[in-house]
Amino acid sequence: MKKIRLGMIGGGQGSFIGAIHRRAAALDGHYELVCGAFSSDPANSRHTGEQLNLAPQRVYDSYTEMLITEASLPASERMQAVAIVTPNHLHAAPVILSLQHGFHVIVDKPLALTLEQAKQIALALQQSTCKLALTHTYAGYPMIKEARHRVASGQFGKIRKILVEYPQGWLSTALENNHHKQASWRTDPGQAGAGAVGDIGTHAAHLAEYVSGLKITEVCAELNAMVPGRQLDDDASALLHFEHGASGMLIATQVAAGEENNVSLRIYGELGGLEWSHQDNNLLRVKMSGQPEQIYRSGAAGLCTAANLATRLPAGHPEGFIEAFANIYSAFALDVSGNGNTDQDYPSIQQGLRGMAFIETMMRSAASTQKWTTFEV
Amino acid sequence: MKKIRLGMIGGGQGSFIGAIHRRAAALDGHYELVCGAFSSDPANSRHTGEQLNLAPQRVYDSYTEMLITEASLPASERMQAVAIVTPNHLHAAPVILSLQHGFHVIVDKPLALTLEQAKQIALALQQSTCKLALTHTYAGYPMIKEARHRVASGQFGKIRKILVEYPQGWLSTALENNHHKQASWRTDPGQAGAGAVGDIGTHAAHLAEYVSGLKITEVCAELNAMVPGRQLDDDASALLHFEHGASGMLIATQVAAGEENNVSLRIYGELGGLEWSHQDNNLLRVKMSGQPEQIYRSGAAGLCTAANLATRLPAGHPEGFIEAFANIYSAFALDVSGNGNTDQDYPSIQQGLRGMAFIETMMRSAASTQKWTTFEV
Amino acid sequence: MKKIRLGMIGGGQGSFIGAIHRRAAALDGHYELVCGAFSSDPANSRHTGEQLNLAPQRVYDSYTEMLITEASLPASERMQAVAIVTPNHLHAAPVILSLQHGFHVIVDKPLALTLEQAKQIALALQQSTCKLALTHTYAGYPMIKEARHRVASGQFGKIRKILVEYPQGWLSTALENNHHKQASWRTDPGQAGAGAVGDIGTHAAHLAEYVSGLKITEVCAELNAMVPGRQLDDDASALLHFEHGASGMLIATQVAAGEENNVSLRIYGELGGLEWSHQDNNLLRVKMSGQPEQIYRSGAAGLCTAANLATRLPAGHPEGFIEAFANIYSAFALDVSGNGNTDQDYPSIQQGLRGMAFIETMMRSAASTQKWTTFEV
Amino acid sequence: MKKIRLGMIGGGQGSFIGAIHRRAAALDGHYELVCGAFSSDPANSRHTGEQLNLAPQRVYDSYTEMLITEASLPASERMQAVAIVTPNHLHAAPVILSLQHGFHVIVDKPLALTLEQAKQIALALQQSTCKLALTHTYAGYPMIKEARHRVASGQFGKIRKILVEYPQGWLSTALENNHHKQASWRTDPGQAGAGAVGDIGTHAAHLAEYVSGLKITEVCAELNAMVPGRQLDDDASALLHFEHGASGMLIATQVAAGEENNVSLRIYGELGGLEWSHQDNNLLRVKMSGQPEQIYRSGAAGLCTAANLATRLPAGHPEGFIEAFANIYSAFALDVSGNGNTDQDYPSIQQGLRGMAFIETMMRSAASTQKWTTFEV
Repeated sequence: MKKIRLGMIGGGQGSFIGAIHRRAAALDGHYELVCGAFSSDPANSRHTGEQLNLAPQRVYDSYTEMLITEASLPASERMQAVAIVTPNHLHAAPVILSLQHGFHVIVDKPLALTLEQAKQIALALQQSTCKLALTHTYAGYPMIKEARHRVASGQFGKIRKILVEYPQGWLSTALENNHHKQASWRTDPGQAGAGAVGDIGTHAAHLAEYVSGLKITEVCAELNAMVPGRQLDDDASALLHFEHGASGMLIATQVAAGEENNVSLRIYGELGGLEWSHQDNNLLRVKMSGQPEQIYRSGAAGLCTAANLATRLPAGHPEGFIEAFANIYSAFALDVSGNGNTDQDYPSIQQGLRGMAFIETMMRSAASTQKWTTFEV
Repeated sequence: MKKIRLGMIGGGQGSFIGAIHRRAAALDGHYELVCGAFSSDPANSRHTGEQLNLAPQRVYDSYTEMLITEASLPASERMQAVAIVTPNHLHAAPVILSLQHGFHVIVDKPLALTLEQAKQIALALQQSTCKLALTHTYAGYPMIKEARHRVASGQFGKIRKILVEYPQGWLSTALENNHHKQASWRTDPGQAGAGAVGDIGTHAAHLAEYVSGLKITEVCAELNAMVPGRQLDDDASALLHFEHGASGMLIATQVAAGEENNVSLRIYGELGGLEWSHQDNNLLRVKMSGQPEQIYRSGAAGLCTAANLATRLPAGHPEGFIEAFANIYSAFALDVSGNGNTDQDYPSIQQGLRGMAFIETMMRSAASTQKWTTFEV
Repeated sequence: MKKIRLGMIGGGQGSFIGAIHRRAAALDGHYELVCGAFSSDPANSRHTGEQLNLAPQRVYDSYTEMLITEASLPASERMQAVAIVTPNHLHAAPVILSLQHGFHVIVDKPLALTLEQAKQIALALQQSTCKLALTHTYAGYPMIKEARHRVASGQFGKIRKILVEYPQGWLSTALENNHHKQASWRTDPGQAGAGAVGDIGTHAAHLAEYVSGLKITEVCAELNAMVPGRQLDDDASALLHFEHGASGMLIATQVAAGEENNVSLRIYGELGGLEWSHQDNNLLRVKMSGQPEQIYRSGAAGLCTAANLATRLPAGHPEGFIEAFANIYSAFALDVSGNGNTDQDYPSIQQGLRGMAFIETMMRSAASTQKWTTFEV
Repeated sequence: MKKIRLGMIGGGQGSFIGAIHRRAAALDGHYELVCGAFSSDPANSRHTGEQLNLAPQRVYDSYTEMLITEASLPASERMQAVAIVTPNHLHAAPVILSLQHGFHVIVDKPLALTLEQAKQIALALQQSTCKLALTHTYAGYPMIKEARHRVASGQFGKIRKILVEYPQGWLSTALENNHHKQASWRTDPGQAGAGAVGDIGTHAAHLAEYVSGLKITEVCAELNAMVPGRQLDDDASALLHFEHGASGMLIATQVAAGEENNVSLRIYGELGGLEWSHQDNNLLRVKMSGQPEQIYRSGAAGLCTAANLATRLPAGHPEGFIEAFANIYSAFALDVSGNGNTDQDYPSIQQGLRGMAFIETMMRSAASTQKWTTFEV
């Protein structure tokens, strides 16, 4: 398979997620970074391009310039796909323009600032011949693939309880008042749209739906801004109703002081349950009633095809976050180049639309005195 | 200190909790079991008494007979305290009668079948010169004492989040249809009053309040009977509001198939958090922002007086459920014999009243379409 | 079953193990403590007896007085068994005298100061009609019973590797220079005979042989006194040869600074292995080649009879060190009263003899420049 | 920094380690793979080169051809460094030839088939102007860097005990009889030279010396071929003496059936100890006497510069084996391009020489009836 020529929008100095996207793209050899508009600050963009050993003429001062110029290059040279890693409020415009210029898009989550924007993206995608991937990283972990497979196989019977959590502690103080770049845009309503519920709540909701195969139908939410003066929620909780009578709970908080990034998921059915935790990402705990707990490890025997295809190393050799990210990149590369398959899936527009609807439903529920608010897209 | 002469109501063959009470009473040498009315079935009662090497004349056919007869014995012989370990609907009457006959009472949780009964018990206690202990076992663990001490010390700053869980899986199927004694009374509205919310939810709520030092003020609850045909809830969830702006979540479910009895508690404040799990009962995880996680172990250096007094063995020698139970028995023995102290506390009538109010508030909330229901006693 | 009337030699104020023996005897209701000679200091002995609510006339100034006096009491009153919990150099004389007076004996490990003494005890036992139990506590844990059962069942195939460790850190400094009672006698050649190899190495060796069902045949040992000035070893390591070609390793150290008491055992056969650790005493990890790791928990379904009989509580309710100790006491009570059975075994004279031979073999090997030293009793 | 043009010898289809080297080289963007002689089978080599999108003219039929041809290319095009990932018996010749042609070398461990070969490599290196890296992966983990830093800082006082283990189970059966490529060469004396002691024992020995900063001075070893018919050891154990009076133990076994690849290291000094395990590679446990255990996590605050430079992601985002491998590649790239620094070290010729001496010393010790065999290079 030929390498896909990749461009990047955002990801200049000070970006957290840009370097991860680049490593994820590099890891499996499916992409070659050929151009970028790394910052709205041209100096930052050029400096970043230089550090990345890009040809100077393919480091652009703006994404508009990049998309227009690249589209005019010979087909054998021009960028084929673009990774968009800007803050949330700068997703919709470059995504739509990229699609309109015929470039495949990989965009960081959440898809946009509003559900309305997301719908515009969906329309642009539909009108194009391009594909779009949304980097819900946790869906890239092999043991998440295995968990999903086991639920779908019916091993646990009818699903009753789905508990998903995403506790972080890094926003326990008002970092945004100290020019902390990551904290500043994430707590700014104009740039982020939503707080914890958008930044990490969407990951949690996606993970719950992805593994359970069940859609959330109603939420009963509370959103708090625990840090005095903060303008967006830093703490989200909800009771959940899923399809087919399953019930659940979601916690997404950035004020769990002392916690790092310990996403976890537990699903229980009539016959048993499973547990996955990001801190132990390479293992999946399966607990069947009346049987000993089983610990499945990535790379070991007996896992499903999707888990195996998402694993590079034999059992006992840990893989991590970049590898999970790379699994999304690689699945997208396969699909874009005509080698897509059902065992190497990636989140796309439907997940993006549901993510934005989730944010808005949670906010609507939090503002309501009624217990349950319907979740629909 | 002289041993306290103990009697028991309930705890005959087929009882789960009776043997635990007896071992807890025996462990530290503060009690001597002298009499019992172990079952409403006299044959069961006599057989149990015989197995326990009790004098036959002090094994009674009914608790009424026991209370009357024991009260008539010489002071140097007669029972001084009575452990009441019957199903919930058989708590109030013997507790009140015991108090009226001048016997101290140790009663299993929840205190009664209804808040109204609990208030009658409170009245009887007030009118007596006796004391009452409620066996909220988890409050007896040394690392729970340590957790409480650390929260009270202000180490974590103002408390923001309180997450408490009590997942069990043993009621994932309709055991009550198969003459399973424990399942049968616990799922019978007439005998148990409430399901998971009463049986284990009260433990969870007590634990959260005990360690945090904060009272629950509002709940937003969902109660489910997940197993078809079940008459009481087997699954309870709630968003919680606590005093002073803390927010939280409670899960008490008996249909988490594959889980055993893994009570856990997490509390986060402005500066850090703590985590305790029943499966690792001898350790407490403390996570302060910007510092490495610390693992405190029972018996080790640097713990508070209450934790040390609740520990029998040096560090590295695990203690368990019976020891936690025994800590409540021992604290009660000290108090009853005039040696009580603030570092060896035990749950009593206030906790019992709050527990019953919790059950009724949760049920009221579950039946409401309003998000929040006030919790008050 | 009638309670066995128990006496105690040693276990006065300042004793660590005496209170554990008393709690272990009390827990299951099979013993009643009726007399004691708790210290060579009569005041200490009397004070201890008083605290234990013993009749004053049955608290003795010396064990000799106790054995003679008790032997003269009517059969229905006199002590039936005696727990001997003195330092090692004070085991042999009271054990032998107890046996000669017709009392069953429970003695702390190691059995004696020397193998020669142990053989004298064996002789006295043989000449009596009494029974003897040796409190190798770790053999009392239910998951150790389960481990042993699984090895014996052939689940792992032929055993190849046996790794046993007992790391402690409490003797990392010269506590014995600061009048620390436990440290002082344990580091005194005259009172303890051997250091780490005797105090904890014998536990480790017993555990390895008990679970594997294989006898150690050769050792290649190193003994160190890591703390300057210490007269006995505080650190023991050995390569081991077992029967039938198994090979292994033993570590017993008291200078693993920061460690508490984390005994662990791993056994590997042709087909899989198992792992048990004292810090997680209620679980057993089973790892079969090509299968997910399985975690068996005490109290859960699917365990062997011996494990079940050693467990008091349902799954998810942790038991600990005192319960393991009590399992030895209870098994002994059953045997002494004619109810013994193969699923409730306890360590006895053979294990005591092997323990003493182990100590002496390790010391001989440590002093040798030859790699292997034969271990035989 | 310009990318280093990298070639590869070995790593064709069926290779395990070749793909890891390629991903490690790609991850941080410091290398560009430009050529390769991937197999002694030209068809395999060409096929591999094609899959990697290499220019056909730079995929060679033999490493000799590659080294000669590449050396003749213009400086701006030709390979600058070569990764040698062949079986052990095919290390020395290409390494030496590469050095002689002026190419930097990255070679998999162990360095060669014999110490004699290793010395020849050392000579060739000395006579060149090139640098050499040896991929002792475990030295690349950030928390191993942190562990080393803490020992060197004196936090634990004088080091007393060093326990290192490398248990695997994959060779528990005679895979080599079933044409299993990895098993076949690793159990063949002609290709591997040594068995477990070479393949994984050298990793363990290196890890112990690297973190402790102490050299092994004497070993007392046992080597077993546990699987009937196997020609090389599959199980190695040793008691160890280190400089300055430290004592230790090493286990490197490939017949711990059910184990995957759980390298672990424990080091204890006068004041405390540390523990690292490959299964939890992103954390380091620090246990100081009298203090709670501390868990340091990669990416969190308070770690040393070397650990931070070896970490790409913020705390809570797991990294793994490929990242550790990439740390060695990146440190080498920095050094080769003149940006080397002491906080980004990599194993080199000295570690390679010690590794080969370790293998030969272990084999000599295993064959001896004397307890201790001196280890010197």
